[in-house]
Amino acid sequence: MKITEYLKNKGKVIDAALDSYLPRDTDYPKAIHRAMRYSAFSGGKRIRPILVLASCEACGGKIKEALPVACAIEMLHTYSLIHDDLPAMDDDDYRRGKLTCHKKFGEAIGILAGDALLTFAMELLSRGKNPGINNNIIRTVTEAIGTYGMIGGQVVDIEERAETDLPTLTYINAHKTGALIAASCKVGAIATGASDKKVRALERYGAYIGFTFQVIDDILDKEGFALALGVGGARREAARLVERAKQELRVFGRKAKALRDLADFLLTRKK
Amino acid sequence: MKITEYLKNKGKVIDAALDSYLPRDTDYPKAIHRAMRYSAFSGGKRIRPILVLASCEACGGKIKEALPVACAIEMLHTYSLIHDDLPAMDDDDYRRGKLTCHKKFGEAIGILAGDALLTFAMELLSRGKNPGINNNIIRTVTEAIGTYGMIGGQVVDIEERAETDLPTLTYINAHKTGALIAASCKVGAIATGASDKKVRALERYGAYIGFTFQVIDDILDKEGFALALGVGGARREAARLVERAKQELRVFGRKAKALRDLADFLLTRKK
Repeated sequence: MKITEYLKNKGKVIDAALDSYLPRDTDYPKAIHRAMRYSAFSGGKRIRPILVLASCEACGGKIKEALPVACAIEMLHTYSLIHDDLPAMDDDDYRRGKLTCHKKFGEAIGILAGDALLTFAMELLSRGKNPGINNNIIRTVTEAIGTYGMIGGQVVDIEERAETDLPTLTYINAHKTGALIAASCKVGAIATGASDKKVRALERYGAYIGFTFQVIDDILDKEGFALALGVGGARREAARLVERAKQELRVFGRKAKALRDLADFLLTRKK
Repeated sequence: MKITEYLKNKGKVIDAALDSYLPRDTDYPKAIHRAMRYSAFSGGKRIRPILVLASCEACGGKIKEALPVACAIEMLHTYSLIHDDLPAMDDDDYRRGKLTCHKKFGEAIGILAGDALLTFAMELLSRGKNPGINNNIIRTVTEAIGTYGMIGGQVVDIEERAETDLPTLTYINAHKTGALIAASCKVGAIATGASDKKVRALERYGAYIGFTFQVIDDILDKEGFALALGVGGARREAARLVERAKQELRVFGRKAKALRDLADFLLTRKK
């Protein structure tokens, strides 16, 4: 299957699952549930949950086992975007051409919708069949999004807004974007009960992919790495990262085809 | 032991444990860890974590088993206060005579410190020895603080600010304050591996206590129930709730002395 078709199919599976897991927007109090759904269905590319499912497949698992985990990861990503868009943070009125959550529902509901998605993601992760696996996933995910991970990246991003030196940029990107992407691949493996060796290989794959994702973002936005390394230098760096990501997949053989194609696909994306 | 002495002793145990669990404020990025600690040590009465420990004792457990759970509950309470104080919510500059988190550290760090305490509480809960118990506790807690619990109460509180009718007040208090207090008692029991019967009894005890707590708050602040029922009516209602709470403790015998004294103590508090 072509990777574009794979992404489209898996995106549909994730959308349907998110719709089934999220609270109904007819449930009281309606405003918060409407806001959660509004942001969860606002045109995201579903890269992180697709990485969860593709990692699960690479380990020989069935995507059904990893679907709640994939949806929880997407809810966590959505929470982080809602809070990043707030007036006190990036103060964005639009995201992907739609009003941001706080512009649509007011700032109080915006803050609470983020809180609620974070909380609900944890609840969903605690509802899996195997308590040992659930625990391992919750520990992995909370480390990735905590103050030594995603939140840490956001703090430094806010503090060092004027700064463009490469070590600071690398810290921000590795933490703000990279940590959750690496965790997505790792938990996809954990959900299948994969060996530690495979879990660690997919975590490293995810770290390279997360970094690539950010470098390409910077090239498209003419920011960060593209300014520090130049567009040519940044493209070469991205290509090197993708090669290293794919090297981590050797142990998985043919089952990792989607993860390999996904890595290559990142280099070609135009938005 | 007198209840005032019990509260003081247990408060010290909780403060020391919180200090040991929370990230060092010398860890990078420092601002977020300073903000988390500032709010966690800003003079809270530690009612919720003390309820966790006293419930654990009522079930015959050792407080050591429930100490991380107690601290996680206090972190969740602290997160909810930080976000409630934000300009978009209650817009409070002071809490217990100290600057609120966002006034001290700026609004962005305020939002992120709340997010970080919520996240870190979940991480702490996933680190307990018994995965089955951890899972049960995380499920209980996330339900209590989600949109059908604490967040739901906050949403309705914001939407119905002018409203003072009793059903709305009851909904707000039961969800915004009551849900986490009831969960505190419940998870104290779960942490010891107590029977379902005992877990449910302590959950009901906690629900009555949470309600009492709110009625007394309203009497002291001349708000809510005190306006709707009159101060005399509200005091009688609080006394009735305390009696019902204590009835739930019969199955625990002498081990529930602290919980009984705590219930009586609530009726006498002056701040």
